[in-house]
Amino acid sequence: MEKEVIVQKFGGSSVANIERMKNVARRVVVYKNKHTDVVVVVSALGDTTDELESMALQLNADPPDREMDMLLSTGEQISCALLAIAIKELGYEAISFTGRQVGIKTDKIHTKARIMTIDGKRINKAFKDDKIVIVAGYQGVTSNDDITTLGRGGSDLTAVALAKALRAKVCEIYTDVDGIYTADPRIVKEARKIKNITFDEMLEMASLGAQVIQARSIEVAKRFNIPLHVRSSFSKEEGTMVVKETEKMESIAVRGVTCNKNEAKITICSVPDKPGIAAKIFGEISKQGINVDTIVQNVPHDRLSDISFTVPKVDLNKAIKATQTIGNKIGAGEVLEDRNIARVSLVGSGMRSHSGIAAKMFKTLADEKINIGMISTSEISVSCIIGQDLADKAVKALHKTFKLETI
Amino acid sequence: MEKEVIVQKFGGSSVANIERMKNVARRVVVYKNKHTDVVVVVSALGDTTDELESMALQLNADPPDREMDMLLSTGEQISCALLAIAIKELGYEAISFTGRQVGIKTDKIHTKARIMTIDGKRINKAFKDDKIVIVAGYQGVTSNDDITTLGRGGSDLTAVALAKALRAKVCEIYTDVDGIYTADPRIVKEARKIKNITFDEMLEMASLGAQVIQARSIEVAKRFNIPLHVRSSFSKEEGTMVVKETEKMESIAVRGVTCNKNEAKITICSVPDKPGIAAKIFGEISKQGINVDTIVQNVPHDRLSDISFTVPKVDLNKAIKATQTIGNKIGAGEVLEDRNIARVSLVGSGMRSHSGIAAKMFKTLADEKINIGMISTSEISVSCIIGQDLADKAVKALHKTFKLETI
Repeated sequence: MEKEVIVQKFGGSSVANIERMKNVARRVVVYKNKHTDVVVVVSALGDTTDELESMALQLNADPPDREMDMLLSTGEQISCALLAIAIKELGYEAISFTGRQVGIKTDKIHTKARIMTIDGKRINKAFKDDKIVIVAGYQGVTSNDDITTLGRGGSDLTAVALAKALRAKVCEIYTDVDGIYTADPRIVKEARKIKNITFDEMLEMASLGAQVIQARSIEVAKRFNIPLHVRSSFSKEEGTMVVKETEKMESIAVRGVTCNKNEAKITICSVPDKPGIAAKIFGEISKQGINVDTIVQNVPHDRLSDISFTVPKVDLNKAIKATQTIGNKIGAGEVLEDRNIARVSLVGSGMRSHSGIAAKMFKTLADEKINIGMISTSEISVSCIIGQDLADKAVKALHKTFKLETI
Repeated sequence: MEKEVIVQKFGGSSVANIERMKNVARRVVVYKNKHTDVVVVVSALGDTTDELESMALQLNADPPDREMDMLLSTGEQISCALLAIAIKELGYEAISFTGRQVGIKTDKIHTKARIMTIDGKRINKAFKDDKIVIVAGYQGVTSNDDITTLGRGGSDLTAVALAKALRAKVCEIYTDVDGIYTADPRIVKEARKIKNITFDEMLEMASLGAQVIQARSIEVAKRFNIPLHVRSSFSKEEGTMVVKETEKMESIAVRGVTCNKNEAKITICSVPDKPGIAAKIFGEISKQGINVDTIVQNVPHDRLSDISFTVPKVDLNKAIKATQTIGNKIGAGEVLEDRNIARVSLVGSGMRSHSGIAAKMFKTLADEKINIGMISTSEISVSCIIGQDLADKAVKALHKTFKLETI
């Protein structure tokens, strides 16, 4: 009978130093003992990636992407070799591989490559030799034999893609938190760990600020229905299962409240109310590679309207510049910025069948005297942009209104 | 017309920090401007290799060789990517490659692999694109696609092997000294930089303690007659050329004086004077992978003799143990150790045609009242083992006797 395969991914904080590396080794062999074939995907140790990146930027303010991939991919190669060395010390056979060595082929878009195919040959050979397989996360190779990386958080993607290729029963994502919570426990002390969450909900939570798993890897897990288990490398407790939606899961309208303080709002005033204007503005901004989120256009007044939208704070200066450029061209008014905003969101696939969630959210915020600047909704989420200083208060109130502490 | 190719190797101290890396980049582009195709081989930054090794040893006192190669090869990958990034900043096209990417195929002896073949395809392609090529030193790949390393100092070997494969006119070895000297300038202030030295002399100097180039890479350079230029990355002065012997070079009897303080002496007393005894002793020691150097056996007395030999200090404890084991078996007496020794040597291919060098050496030491413990000779060198505290005095006196300051 074929053994079951399990993929375990350990993030940078889980392998940040020698003691933690030993801890991971001890965890891994426990699974090996359960008559399971184990593939471990590791990120770079602690801040290695940041340190390498900083060296590159000291040499060249605009380092070439191909060379950055050559450079940054070493971080994961170091940690996978070290983990294999640590596991061997415990008396188990282990072998480490780079992304290339396990045949992770990607496209040629350096620093954010996409996985095209995975050839699991060397892994299956290692399984036959009864070895624990350690794979360097975050990297692959092009058809030209150049090393690529998969973007920040790319080790999650490596893990999910390997889980798919090896038909793993589960992909465990080990991190420094012990699961997904109904709200940030640092803000809401009654926050509960969520036992089961759907891929869609997790995707919303990830894009709304819960930075536990990379969004793209959740999409891949959803497409191939690979259950993810988000859990802590420092405790043995079960974490949160990210799974396909079941009917039962829909009975709960709201799964959690998220809060994102990393956005800023731009307002371009007195925009002439002509067809195609919005396309011009957002075309210019997207040319800069900036993701615009919520967009709101005021009702026009004298054939002029204000348009507001949010962008990640890190892109604010670039976005302001692009907006001013296009604003001048189309004869719009001044461009304003507001860094003091927060996005507070409710997420839950039950929203599809439960009505009145948004109305209840607005009422809760109104009761707390919190002014709503912008609103946006998706099929399974409602977001309000509010003042950043009121964000924690809003999260606490919403957590209470929707009785998330009782789920 | 085909351009000339030059290979430049920069050691770890030459790229130890950001400023030095920039310095190397500036040196490299000067050669590119001379209408030359340039291949740069880099070692790991400063102490990176030692740091990675130390992490591995904290996880496992006996880390597996394959994983060590996976781990340690990252050091050179980091520096070659950083150098390419630094060169691009200067407005030149550069591309970095791992040993594998330029087709450096090795045997499967991890941590001390030997290069089997080099396929220069990617390098020639990069030359056609007018790019400066940066290659990670010290590494290759097996036919199984496993990463190997070439042993300490292996970046020299990468450089020489690439120079051979690409028919380079010269292989420059950049280091933190500006050439090979007639003696260590820290000991003899009159020491002169040697302009030209033969491969054989350089080999003797390397094995006798002048740790500027890895011995194996000198052998390869000799076999394929690739001129080496040993020079400093911190100055523009010419260094020392290591070349094929010419008649003119033979006119000088002694090229230099070396001194090695890293050996220790072991004496096994009262060894029964029977055939095959020496083979037993040194067979046991070589089984431990220890290189024995000078061996001296006393004239037997009562069918018993003392045997003395030298080993590297780092192997002393292991060697003592092995000697005691075999000593007990063959009924020999006690085993003594002496760490307080130094090997002082004269090197010169002119020794082949000049006689009386050894006698003059012994007389010089006698005049200085320095007792000679052991003597060994090769075709182009004479070595004396003396007390370590007298070594500097001996080197100074020999440098004077053979008028090396006037060469």
